[in-house]
Formats: sequence, C-alpha cells, structure tokens
Amino acid sequence: MTQVFVIGVAVVDFVFAVGALPTRAAKHRAKQAEIVGGGCAANAAVAIARLGGQALLGARLGDDALGDIIVADLEFEGVDTALVQRFAAARSSFSSIYVDDQGERQIMNFRGSGLGLATDWIASAPPVDAVLVDTRWSEGAVAGLQRAREQGVPGIVDAEAPMDFEVLTAASHVAFSRDGLLSLCGLETSTAAGPQLESALRQAGQRLATWVCVTDGALGCFYLDAGRFVHEPVLPITVRDTLAAGDVWHGAFALALGEGQGEGDAVRFANAAAALKCQTFGGRKGSPDRAAVMTFLKENQQCS
Amino acid sequence: MTQVFVIGVAVVDFVFAVGALPTRAAKHRAKQAEIVGGGCAANAAVAIARLGGQALLGARLGDDALGDIIVADLEFEGVDTALVQRFAAARSSFSSIYVDDQGERQIMNFRGSGLGLATDWIASAPPVDAVLVDTRWSEGAVAGLQRAREQGVPGIVDAEAPMDFEVLTAASHVAFSRDGLLSLCGLETSTAAGPQLESALRQAGQRLATWVCVTDGALGCFYLDAGRFVHEPVLPITVRDTLAAGDVWHGAFALALGEGQGEGDAVRFANAAAALKCQTFGGRKGSPDRAAVMTFLKENQQCS
Repeated sequence: MTQVFVIGVAVVDFVFAVGALPTRAAKHRAKQAEIVGGGCAANAAVAIARLGGQALLGARLGDDALGDIIVADLEFEGVDTALVQRFAAARSSFSSIYVDDQGERQIMNFRGSGLGLATDWIASAPPVDAVLVDTRWSEGAVAGLQRAREQGVPGIVDAEAPMDFEVLTAASHVAFSRDGLLSLCGLETSTAAGPQLESALRQAGQRLATWVCVTDGALGCFYLDAGRFVHEPVLPITVRDTLAAGDVWHGAFALALGEGQGEGDAVRFANAAAALKCQTFGGRKGSPDRAAVMTFLKENQQCS
Repeated sequence: MTQVFVIGVAVVDFVFAVGALPTRAAKHRAKQAEIVGGGCAANAAVAIARLGGQALLGARLGDDALGDIIVADLEFEGVDTALVQRFAAARSSFSSIYVDDQGERQIMNFRGSGLGLATDWIASAPPVDAVLVDTRWSEGAVAGLQRAREQGVPGIVDAEAPMDFEVLTAASHVAFSRDGLLSLCGLETSTAAGPQLESALRQAGQRLATWVCVTDGALGCFYLDAGRFVHEPVLPITVRDTLAAGDVWHGAFALALGEGQGEGDAVRFANAAAALKCQTFGGRKGSPDRAAVMTFLKENQQCS
C-alpha cells in the first residue's frame, strides 16, 4: 500500500450553509450546519485513506476536547494518527466556514495556541512513498521535505500564502493555490487575469527550479511540462460545496506521485477526486473513494 | 431572592476576534477565538444570576455533546437548569460570531433540529417574580407570558425579528431591538433615522397597548412614559465587544422589574449592566456583577 506522510494542520470545522455570504454586522440564520473535521493536511490525509492509500498524519493539537474530536474523526476515517502530537495546556485550531448557494466557501480560522515547535518526531518518521506538507508551520514543512529528499521520494507543498520561500525550495513539487502563486509574484490576488497566471507560474518555476502547478478552482489546474504551459480543465459537475476540494486535490496528487504516476496523470487523478468532492455538502465528508474516481475518469475519457 | 423565569434559546458560540468583517469567499485568520455559551435567553439568565437574582432557564437542547457543554456552563454560572429540556436524536443550536475591531458583532446561527414543541412544562413551572422570553419559539414564549399574567408578574419580550404578533400582545413589557421595531412597522432597517424610531415606537405602543421600549446599541434606550418619548443614553465606556450586550440588557431589565423597580429605574439599571458588558471581549463572559453595576451607576450619578 502506498504510504504518504502528511504534515500540517488538523482542525474542527463548523460549517454553515448560507444563502449568500453575510455582509452586515447583524444576526443571520444558517439553512443547515455540520460539525466536521478539517484542516489542509488532515483533509488531504482523509482523501488519501479513502483513495486506498495509507496516510500518516503529522499534526499538532492541544490536549483539549476539540483535539479529542479531531483525532477520533481521523481514526474513524482510517488515517494513521500515531504521529499526531498533543500538547498540554495548548488549544486546538478550529474554523467557522460559510458555504453559499454557489458552493463558494469563506473560512475564518483560529490557529490554536501553545502548540510545540520541535521537529525531531518528523526527522525520525518511518519511510514513506511521498511527503505532503502545507505552509502553516514552516519548520515542520521543511523537516518533512528534507525527509522526502533523503528518502528519494516526492516532496509536495500545498502552497498557500503566507509561505516561506525556504519551504518552497525544499520541495520537489509545488502546487500553488491561485492566491498563493500571485502573492509570491507580488500580484494583486483579486484582479489578476489568465495571462498573468501563466507569467506568474513561469516566474515561480524559474525561481524555485522545481515542478510547479497552480490550482484555480472551477478552472482546474495549470502546470509547466518541460517549458510548455498546460491547462488541465475540471470535468463537468454540479458544484454544491467547494470546502476541502483543494485539500482533496493535494492528497490525491501526492498519492498518485507516491504510486509512481507521472505528473500529468496525477493532475488528472487529483482533478477528478476534487471535482467529485464538490458534488457533496459538508467539506471532506464528500471526499470520494478510488472506485468513484476511476469510474468518473473512465466515463469522461469515453466522452472525449 | 428575586426569581426570573427565562424562556428561549441556549447555544454555544464560537467567537472569533477579527480585524474587519470578511467580505471575500477566501481564507481568513482570526486574531483570537473563544468557545462560550450564548443564546438570548441563556445569556440573559447568566446576567440575572451574576446580578444576584435567581434565573430559572427554560431552553430546549439536543441530547448531544454541544448540549452537555451548554448545560455545564450554565450550571457553572449558577443558572437553575432544572427546566432545560433535552431531546433524543435532536441537535443543539450553535453560532459562529465575528467581532471586529470596533466591537461590532456579526452572528451566524444554526437553530438546531428535532427540538420538541410541547409547552406543558412551561405551564407547570413554579411561581416567579418575572418572566422573560425571546421570540425564537412563539408557542413557548406565549405559554411563558400567559404564566406571568396568571401570576400577576411582569412578562417581558426581547422582541427581535422575525416575531409573531401574538407573542407581543401576550406581554406586559415589550423591549424591541432596533431591527425588530422597524420590521414590525414595515420600515427598512438600515436607513431609518431618529425621528422614524420615535414614530415607530409610538405606533407599536398603540397597536400593542403594552409598555414598549427600543434598545439601539450605542445610543441606549428609548421608551414611552405616559405618552412622553424618553431617551436614556448609554454612559461613556470603551467598547470592546457588543456580543450578548442586548441579552444582558434584557436580563437586567427583567430582574429589576421583578424586584419591583419602576420602568425608568429598570432601564437605567439595564443600560449600566449592558455597558459594562461591552468593555470585555468574549460575549456573556463579560457580564457584570451587582456591585460593579451599582458602583458604575453611582459614579455616573455624581458626575451629572
């Protein structure tokens, strides 16, 4: 079984379905709400487990009630939590998330407090087939990527702003979010258009000397393949909830690389997994299994 | 000890301190966060207990983990929870709340689900000195106000939209929020000015034939006293968090009426309690005790 070590954030998400995102400092009523596990790394780990990989999660939590809820849900999902670190008198991270009628999500995250900074438990982790990190905790991310390099396996960064340049250069593969890429290049995130994305990605690829791609929601993924700018669009789906879709993408991409798939195939696999996730409300609860992804890819291959 | 029966909502609030309220469907980071008990009725009950009254809370909760957290915190605050109703397979209510740098709050509430509708436990509640209801659950509010009328004690409504006219007419005292009053009169909530507030309050007083007032945040309270439009302003304070301030106001007002104070004195008492609450971050955790309110009133009396 392909093993992926995922290092980063695990939280509880309080997810509210709203008609439209609120704008006034008033009282608003949610149509529906769910309490679900979340966080970039934890969501990616769940996606990997559901897709048939073995996910080893390295996350830091408080020794509090929320931490218990987070670990219990990860174990229910089949994620290996042996390396999850709990800290006394620390507070676990949690988020409030509003999902509107178009499936767009707005996230408000509390990062937790009192979480330890030692990285020795990362350096001594068992051998794996790939390492995936998010950019929340730079020292941990760098330690994980160095471990990947030592073992000669892919080291992937889910690159969201704010991020340290040191993390990006330690990776073999950098998958930017749109905002992450634009902020690296000093561009305004809300106004940048398509051509700017290509130029920003080329700039990032040259500066980092690693494989780079950018995921851009409904537009899919753009990556550089031996100097060629490639667009891998998203297959047609009905979007209900984009929450955790990016994390599912990164988990699926890391798993595919760990299995030895090429980058182009891994991007298609990740696009399919993330698209299927978007069809279901409730964040990572909508993460698909392997059979669903393979069926979806096959059906859409026959159509093209 | 003066006893107040408070009927309405008890929830858990996930409160995030933010610089400014978010507008984009992006990821945002909170400066600080707290998990605190909330809900109009529950906050009012805590305010009453801290002010030296006895608060008997009638609220409906799920038989879930959030319900346990809600009840435990209420008991810690000295609220009598003997009449709190728990329902199997039901979900307790929770809210996400953003408090900005000006202390203004935006609330997103999930109402819970599967909560029972019987009101017999309200009709058979023990005698009290006042009854306070919110407008979330009309049948429960009406049952509570009828109980007050039978016992010849004040029946107060915390009147927020949406609300049933039947609830308002069953009360002896209706304390509107600004939005509640304007919606009753069919006025646009965001644009109404001062003179419209007076005209709306006079209209409401005539239609309901009860004592009416409206609380309007930093402006304080406006009420009708034998046809006279009276403004009771808020004493000068530094606002850090307005969350739960209205609920503290209603709790203090109901307690003061239950103690036999006149409406004018009760409004001043409630204004002082709510103002003191606003000086502290964390919703009802900032609710003051009796000594603090009396000192605050005394200090400001000497100044005038």
